[in-house]
Amino acid sequence: MTPNALDRLVTLLSKLPGIGKKSASRMAYHILDGENAYARTLAEELAALHHSIRRCGICGGFTETDPCPICSDPNRDHSVICVIERAQDLRIIEESREFNGVFHVLGGLIAPLEGINPGDLAIGTLLARLGGENVKEIILALNPTVEGDTTALYLQKVLKDFSIEVTRLASGLPVGGDLEYTDRLTISRSFRGRVKV
Amino acid sequence: MTPNALDRLVTLLSKLPGIGKKSASRMAYHILDGENAYARTLAEELAALHHSIRRCGICGGFTETDPCPICSDPNRDHSVICVIERAQDLRIIEESREFNGVFHVLGGLIAPLEGINPGDLAIGTLLARLGGENVKEIILALNPTVEGDTTALYLQKVLKDFSIEVTRLASGLPVGGDLEYTDRLTISRSFRGRVKV
Repeated sequence: MTPNALDRLVTLLSKLPGIGKKSASRMAYHILDGENAYARTLAEELAALHHSIRRCGICGGFTETDPCPICSDPNRDHSVICVIERAQDLRIIEESREFNGVFHVLGGLIAPLEGINPGDLAIGTLLARLGGENVKEIILALNPTVEGDTTALYLQKVLKDFSIEVTRLASGLPVGGDLEYTDRLTISRSFRGRVKV
Repeated sequence: MTPNALDRLVTLLSKLPGIGKKSASRMAYHILDGENAYARTLAEELAALHHSIRRCGICGGFTETDPCPICSDPNRDHSVICVIERAQDLRIIEESREFNGVFHVLGGLIAPLEGINPGDLAIGTLLARLGGENVKEIILALNPTVEGDTTALYLQKVLKDFSIEVTRLASGLPVGGDLEYTDRLTISRSFRGRVKV
């Protein structure tokens, strides 16, 4: 007995990550209860999204201009490439303001069980960049998971032939974390990666 | 360094109920990562939403036809009106399949501190319905909160002049609930409303 248009909207919204049927329903009713202007603006942004945003031809990140603002910025250090799994990881690293190099989006992690092999990732374009740019270091900013470790190991092997330093983000206790609530593997990693103080 | 179009979408999405900046960002990247067709369909549904869905002239619920399918259904019991706070409450009650009468949406609850007075609610239209239709019972399906109690008390007074039975949904332990995790007020209500077995 719910209007069909509302049902269709709920079905569409519940396809979003982390959004179940209940949340989707709450969102839909909120939009319907609110101003038409909000729904229209959201609709326009969504309709234009794939037209205004493309992939950067160099790093593979989302951008409105090609090459992206980071790849075309002369003030960034183009000799350090930070390799990330997905384009959204770029945002998180940028927000930390810790890194001033450039990026490379792999577009996934090696996961043979899910049918994702090295050939499916943007590894060829990464190697191509090493020829042109004067790259000194590659930082692997991949998640400390089985897939992240596998991919890091593979890239390490592939990059051995180049005279480039390959590093990986430190893994250990999160800031503000508590030993009591830290899993065994994280503790084990934080021991192996312990630093002098 | 995130594309502006993406930032605008994240800002819009984070205005939805229960959606923070992080969830909005995840949703936006998911849409961008996915097919353009999904973004376009969602955009079309949103753009058309306020045109295709209106308020039912009788009960105030969301509908594509006026009167709504429930109000115009001869198989529903038009002598029992279930009074609800918001249009979305209708969906939840319909899903329980417990009720075969008709509805009336108040559009809020009395909350003097928030400036919501009886005059702001659809009480006049409820009283108008009592003249025309042969109503025998009004079920107040309002939340067991201070605002819900206040509104129920007010409606009880207003409806006293009509020879109509006014009832309210039972309040007590939720099915599958645990006494240990039930608050004092709910326990107190479940005692007062105890039934013979």
